[in-house]
Amino acid sequence: MSAIDHFWAVIPAGGAGTRLWPLSRSSSPKFLHDLTGSGLSLLRETHERLAPLAGDRFLVVTGAAHREAVRAQLADLGEDAVLAEPSPRDSMAAIGLAAALLERRDPDAVMGSFAADHVIADRVGFATCVETAVGAARAGWLVTLGIEPTHPSSAFGYIHLGEDLADLPGVRGVRAFVEKPDAATARAYLAGGDHRWNAGMFVVRPGVLLDLLGRWHPEFAATLRTIAADPARLDELWPSLPKIALDHAIAEPAAEAGRVAVVPAAFDWDDIGDFDSLAGLLARGDGTDGALVLGDPGLVRAIDATGLVVPGSGRTVAVVGLEDVVVVDTPDALLVTTRARAQQVKAVVAALKDGGRADLT
Amino acid sequence: MSAIDHFWAVIPAGGAGTRLWPLSRSSSPKFLHDLTGSGLSLLRETHERLAPLAGDRFLVVTGAAHREAVRAQLADLGEDAVLAEPSPRDSMAAIGLAAALLERRDPDAVMGSFAADHVIADRVGFATCVETAVGAARAGWLVTLGIEPTHPSSAFGYIHLGEDLADLPGVRGVRAFVEKPDAATARAYLAGGDHRWNAGMFVVRPGVLLDLLGRWHPEFAATLRTIAADPARLDELWPSLPKIALDHAIAEPAAEAGRVAVVPAAFDWDDIGDFDSLAGLLARGDGTDGALVLGDPGLVRAIDATGLVVPGSGRTVAVVGLEDVVVVDTPDALLVTTRARAQQVKAVVAALKDGGRADLT
Repeated sequence: MSAIDHFWAVIPAGGAGTRLWPLSRSSSPKFLHDLTGSGLSLLRETHERLAPLAGDRFLVVTGAAHREAVRAQLADLGEDAVLAEPSPRDSMAAIGLAAALLERRDPDAVMGSFAADHVIADRVGFATCVETAVGAARAGWLVTLGIEPTHPSSAFGYIHLGEDLADLPGVRGVRAFVEKPDAATARAYLAGGDHRWNAGMFVVRPGVLLDLLGRWHPEFAATLRTIAADPARLDELWPSLPKIALDHAIAEPAAEAGRVAVVPAAFDWDDIGDFDSLAGLLARGDGTDGALVLGDPGLVRAIDATGLVVPGSGRTVAVVGLEDVVVVDTPDALLVTTRARAQQVKAVVAALKDGGRADLT
Repeated sequence: MSAIDHFWAVIPAGGAGTRLWPLSRSSSPKFLHDLTGSGLSLLRETHERLAPLAGDRFLVVTGAAHREAVRAQLADLGEDAVLAEPSPRDSMAAIGLAAALLERRDPDAVMGSFAADHVIADRVGFATCVETAVGAARAGWLVTLGIEPTHPSSAFGYIHLGEDLADLPGVRGVRAFVEKPDAATARAYLAGGDHRWNAGMFVVRPGVLLDLLGRWHPEFAATLRTIAADPARLDELWPSLPKIALDHAIAEPAAEAGRVAVVPAAFDWDDIGDFDSLAGLLARGDGTDGALVLGDPGLVRAIDATGLVVPGSGRTVAVVGLEDVVVVDTPDALLVTTRARAQQVKAVVAALKDGGRADLT
């Protein structure tokens, strides 16, 4: 596989991963961690997945607090490759800033934006879809990758597929982006076959992205281009940018306007939204659904127990007689819950903040 | 309440408390720990319960490894008050050695033997029963205290009550000591009213105890008296003593021979056999059966959780969505189980020993 000419990988590296507390903290979010047992952080895995396609053309956009950690993990990239947001302003500002910079840096650029904390094992399948998407992006489309659902998830938004696009084999139109459905609707989507998971992956020419943004949010697009022309004004202008997700700012209205295409993708994908999702991911790798261990198995003694154990402090962890339990051990905090209740972990983080222990979050 | 003349409190302080791992370790058994949240270890609580009756007449028999820890906790007692067993040889040897020493030290002695790791909140009720038992002991009986059952437990041995004893109000004969019953038998015992829990408490004149031992194990009794006469021979003779519980060596045959009396006791009692038992004990004190905390409640965040949390390492412990869970956090080991499976904790200890981690047990 060879790099794609003028293809730039943009990696928004944000999000606290609250539901993966205490592994993920605001000071050390989940993309900095090895959550798959591969030996690589999710960020480094994302880089390795994209490097064959982008070569050294990377732009990572992250919070100022994480800039050094990101640079340390991606030491091969140049200093210019890591952008620090002065403050969190959601995905449209982060990805839009990358677009504005690339628009000036490379007039022929096609950018592909992929979150730093998603897991895709099938690198060849991924690369093939990205190559197809780049072709459609060069033709002027805002292109997304639509993940084939493996189960009727209520945790993801969906993409409603449209017709095949002429002259672009393997690419279809997008009828609409739809919000996270209820369980019955999700089952209907899975049965119908016309819906894909929205993994927030976008491939597009930077100018197309900014022009689409300019159509619905003209000042937003103009400010991003002003910053790109004079990066010294970043700190001054950044706080004026709206806090809005790219999906709402561009993708949804552009789909209505018939400007969005999708490459239906069959590769596996996981955003590791919580410990239940993480356990499912490890179980697929492990071929078992017993007591899964993320870390040193020698630290775990499980007797009549299933679920996920993360021995993250060097201490021995013994689990006896619990099904689908989740035990996450770190040097300063311990979580015990179940896979079914994993979503509620964010309530712990909220309680800690309310209780004056934001230092633990 | 004033001390009872010539009454000596004997406290066998042994047993690893394996089912309370990782709180209790062979290097730091449960009697050294505060398991009730009182601020006192079980050993110190036992001492405080007995001091009004015995004054400074104490003999604590413990393993050589724990002698210094016991002395540190009971610093007010003289050096003579703590006996170190050269090796563990079960309760008959430990209590018999105390009897042999007291037989020489105080010809009018009555000894009462009470384990170091039992919990009794009602000190007045306890003292009243001991006073009654001492009266019967002076009359030559081997006297035990029979705890009124609160539920049909299969975890304890029972005492089958006999007739009231003439001239000894509040004292009855013992028909037999019976082994731990099955559930149906335990229910029948509770319904019948003629059975009491055997808490292993014995009040007796030292000479009577040794003479009874001599009747069934003459060499055992003779060796104990030899050691008492020449304590320098302890290390030499101790290994020759049989490993046998006092119940089997004396109490059972003496009951058959009509030599055992019992004071039926109505005070609460708990031997904290496992974490289920500990949670039940704390729930009674707490008036709740929610998420009980043994330690600093500020370290625990429980959301939709019931059971027992022991935050013993200074780390924050979060528990979400589990019923009757047991979480015990210590600096080098963590246990997660349920109240219903608490008995299986000893399997963890066995697995750790088998796996070369005896240092954690």
